[in-house]
Amino acid sequence: MDVAAMQRALREFSAEREWQRFNTPRNLALALVGEVGELAELLQWLTDEEAAAIADDGGDDGADPAAQRLRQRAGEEVSDVLAYLLLLAESLGVDVERAFTAKLAANAEKYPAHLARGSAAKYTDLRPEG
Amino acid sequence: MDVAAMQRALREFSAEREWQRFNTPRNLALALVGEVGELAELLQWLTDEEAAAIADDGGDDGADPAAQRLRQRAGEEVSDVLAYLLLLAESLGVDVERAFTAKLAANAEKYPAHLARGSAAKYTDLRPEG
Amino acid sequence: MDVAAMQRALREFSAEREWQRFNTPRNLALALVGEVGELAELLQWLTDEEAAAIADDGGDDGADPAAQRLRQRAGEEVSDVLAYLLLLAESLGVDVERAFTAKLAANAEKYPAHLARGSAAKYTDLRPEG
Amino acid sequence: MDVAAMQRALREFSAEREWQRFNTPRNLALALVGEVGELAELLQWLTDEEAAAIADDGGDDGADPAAQRLRQRAGEEVSDVLAYLLLLAESLGVDVERAFTAKLAANAEKYPAHLARGSAAKYTDLRPEG
Repeated sequence: MDVAAMQRALREFSAEREWQRFNTPRNLALALVGEVGELAELLQWLTDEEAAAIADDGGDDGADPAAQRLRQRAGEEVSDVLAYLLLLAESLGVDVERAFTAKLAANAEKYPAHLARGSAAKYTDLRPEG
Repeated sequence: MDVAAMQRALREFSAEREWQRFNTPRNLALALVGEVGELAELLQWLTDEEAAAIADDGGDDGADPAAQRLRQRAGEEVSDVLAYLLLLAESLGVDVERAFTAKLAANAEKYPAHLARGSAAKYTDLRPEG
Repeated sequence: MDVAAMQRALREFSAEREWQRFNTPRNLALALVGEVGELAELLQWLTDEEAAAIADDGGDDGADPAAQRLRQRAGEEVSDVLAYLLLLAESLGVDVERAFTAKLAANAEKYPAHLARGSAAKYTDLRPEG
Repeated sequence: MDVAAMQRALREFSAEREWQRFNTPRNLALALVGEVGELAELLQWLTDEEAAAIADDGGDDGADPAAQRLRQRAGEEVSDVLAYLLLLAESLGVDVERAFTAKLAANAEKYPAHLARGSAAKYTDLRPEG
């Protein structure tokens, strides 16, 4: 499913409920923050090992119900964050696929593989003002 | 460009720089927060009208350089947030497209169009614990 | 009530429940994000005018129950954010009062009143990397 | 230094620069998110052990310059988050000290020490909707 299809589905969902007028940049930015908060809460008291185990739960037929429940909830929160991010991008006139491709190319040029290799310091610089 | 292709591109980008070991759930959640902060900063001192004007800048050949510059920066920040969100989803074993489709279907059932129509209150409930 | 007294109260609260071991920098940073998300959700669908009305609700004996309820909830969320921020500062060995005084002095020097006056641009620069 | 004195200092700082008009609830909430993002970035690539070492840097005369620099930056980010949180509280008509005391008392009643002792699950419930 490509980003454009996701945005179409979100547009239809909003239109059917007459919610378009709520989809302003600042409303959606604050809503995005709310959902990112939900995602953070899932991980806040876990050790790095416990968090890593969420993906290693043996899949849907796996043996760890707690990890599966966390993975299920993580999927819901990731979806909520993604939904508001795509609605926000649309409200700002941002072409997500084009912006994503351009940013990745810019980062590839900024951090040549042979120099950046294995360096957390370089990674830390992977920020807009970096 | 679908989500799977974006995740492949991000995986390759990390692999070429030997950065995979940094891609843990809690690292990526904190990095996501950092990029959401950059996105919020773009909008923090704008009025709702000024924020709405970012999308109405007449396109790349448009007349408002300030709005175009903001839209450009917004595209970069949206891309950074998306990149960390997709890497985080992968680190948690979340199938993004599947989770997104399931969550949208759940919300559609939870908020019947004929009841939710035009209601901000309903919209506010569009939260996991809602 | 000074910051040191608030931190003492939080320390005692954690100690009585044997929760100190959960108070690590990264745990508390993610918990802080969760509470900031709750605060953002309170404001996400309000217009700037509706948000301004929360403070102008005529006080506790005032006439607007909706604004009073929002102000009550805002107080709870602000308290949660403050609690995790003070616990985080302590986990990082940060002297909050000293850091706050030093940062305010640094900003006063960085943004001379006669130059910064009324300028949102200057205000936008009030960021660490500004 | 008590919260009221910090708020007075922030009020004066804004007044001297004629920035009061920018101090609206939604502006300050987005600015708060921006500073929380800066704080998260400091911790994003650290292990839990590295993050814990920031407080154990032997103090200002200590032996670890890297930890000291991180602690210095953490102090600046904590101050920025606190400044926007206190300005936001004021813009919402929230009495911070009163709200903080009330919330702590409510949590003490909600999580009796003899029941909550050592339980991360209980701790996780320390959320508004918990």
